[in-house]
Amino acid sequence: MTPEAAPSLDALYRDIAPDLATVDAEIAAALAVDRPELKAMMAHAAAYAGKKLRPGLVLLIGKAMGGDPRLRRLGACVELIHLATLVHDDVIDGAERRRKIETVNARWTNYDAVLLGDVIFSRAINLLGRLGDARSIDVLTRAASTLCEGEILQNAHRHDADLEENLYYRIISDKTAVLYGAACELAAHLSRAPEPVVQGLKVYGVELGLAFQIIDDCLDLVGDESEVGKSLGTDLRNGKVTLPILLLFRRVDAAERKRLAAAVIGGAEESERRRLLEALRAHGSVEEALERAARHVRDGLAAARAVAPAGAMTALETVAAFVVARRK
Amino acid sequence: MTPEAAPSLDALYRDIAPDLATVDAEIAAALAVDRPELKAMMAHAAAYAGKKLRPGLVLLIGKAMGGDPRLRRLGACVELIHLATLVHDDVIDGAERRRKIETVNARWTNYDAVLLGDVIFSRAINLLGRLGDARSIDVLTRAASTLCEGEILQNAHRHDADLEENLYYRIISDKTAVLYGAACELAAHLSRAPEPVVQGLKVYGVELGLAFQIIDDCLDLVGDESEVGKSLGTDLRNGKVTLPILLLFRRVDAAERKRLAAAVIGGAEESERRRLLEALRAHGSVEEALERAARHVRDGLAAARAVAPAGAMTALETVAAFVVARRK
Repeated sequence: MTPEAAPSLDALYRDIAPDLATVDAEIAAALAVDRPELKAMMAHAAAYAGKKLRPGLVLLIGKAMGGDPRLRRLGACVELIHLATLVHDDVIDGAERRRKIETVNARWTNYDAVLLGDVIFSRAINLLGRLGDARSIDVLTRAASTLCEGEILQNAHRHDADLEENLYYRIISDKTAVLYGAACELAAHLSRAPEPVVQGLKVYGVELGLAFQIIDDCLDLVGDESEVGKSLGTDLRNGKVTLPILLLFRRVDAAERKRLAAAVIGGAEESERRRLLEALRAHGSVEEALERAARHVRDGLAAARAVAPAGAMTALETVAAFVVARRK
Repeated sequence: MTPEAAPSLDALYRDIAPDLATVDAEIAAALAVDRPELKAMMAHAAAYAGKKLRPGLVLLIGKAMGGDPRLRRLGACVELIHLATLVHDDVIDGAERRRKIETVNARWTNYDAVLLGDVIFSRAINLLGRLGDARSIDVLTRAASTLCEGEILQNAHRHDADLEENLYYRIISDKTAVLYGAACELAAHLSRAPEPVVQGLKVYGVELGLAFQIIDDCLDLVGDESEVGKSLGTDLRNGKVTLPILLLFRRVDAAERKRLAAAVIGGAEESERRRLLEALRAHGSVEEALERAARHVRDGLAAARAVAPAGAMTALETVAAFVVARRK
């Protein structure tokens, strides 16, 4: 993957720094526990906190739309839901490292990680309830359900060399894009934007989320582990068929496809996975997938541009450019 | 365990049969899914539906307090939260059977069961949001978090032969009684009962929940598997130290205690577990624990009697008698 200079979010985030600090404080308060058995585990999971892309999006959209103090709490809720899913995802993927530290399941047990994810999710929704907005509860609890349905669907299609592109899209839409869409929709809604604007920003969020997941899938195949900070190559080892592979399969004949598909079938060997990675490189399939991600971002920006006030576009464009260019 | 004739809930439940049917319909609607990969799994989990003690409690209390149409939805939410925790608990306990059928984790995978539990929980809270009552969201999402915290605490004290009784109580209060308390509290609250009544019924629910869990712990040691309908003896095999064992440890000298404690320590053998079960029988420790459960129920009834209208007591007493006498 060719590294590109990622546009910096720093300038944008500087504008919302006090709000992001409030988000952090809300998250910390929501995760407070009394028992020592829980404290270490919770502190460990809280340290997963990364780019804060979701609360950043919520706050930036909110700010561009006139803003509302409730956006900070919404940002905290979205980040907490995301955090809960990370904890469960690592159990499901058997991942050992996340954001350069051990995962909860690796440091404690799978069981603890399941329960801790449940605690974080319950507390996310408790905070959400205190937002006092019925639409936020409806949209985000639906998104949470959809997210897990997407993971179940993905699980059911591990080692499925015949996975079709529309099912791949359903999976990444459910497991990732719906939450981005929900965050953007609700940020606009809480800012009292007119309904067409809310819908346009929802589309922006969904397209950004699709791009985000496609890039994640590419990074897992060809990223630099020390830069990305989590275990890579796990998708392939777990038999997950992602967009670059689907695009590759389309470029080769039936015999070659069958030969390459061995890498995603249960019990595949390291040599078969290496062969697939070489074919991906030879056919430029990762680059093709990245171009698809860029197209989603363009579509999302077009949807936003059709409805959003001109003053909101700079922030939306910078976040979009960051998602396209990120390499970790 | 001496079987006693359980007072029948049938007569009471007959009075609320139409409401219970609505609860069932709300649950079915909340669990509707479109993908075939999910459908079978969801139908399987939905078949866990058992005694419906929690919605029954909600509806009976509500009816006794004057009633409110929202109680049916509250009952559905509480049952759905309970269902989600059953699905996760079976993963954590490695249980293979529940209510006479295979568990989701046994039939599919642990991962699917984790995600399915998340889906059910998210949908429970979505339904809760549509109740439109802030206190219900606050109390039930807190209860859900507490429940999982209790499980983590329990997990941290597996194989802990020095577990103290107050920590055992904290565990069963968190993992079981708090949700019973929440159900009773909210049933009274939605029925517009005065706050002291709401608080009294919350205590009733908590005490009933403590009794329920103590009896569950007893059944796991000495119940009849074909009658109870789930795998028994799993607590001991998982190193869970429950009330009968704590009471037994108090009745024997230090040397005997050390000898018996071997049964709960990691790597214990079947013969050591058998020896512990014999000592439990010889010292009547299960009966002693059951008497403790009965005392909790009496305390709960006293708290209810102090505040509730006399007309409500018959229902509360029948449910309480059912909990004390249940042997499955």
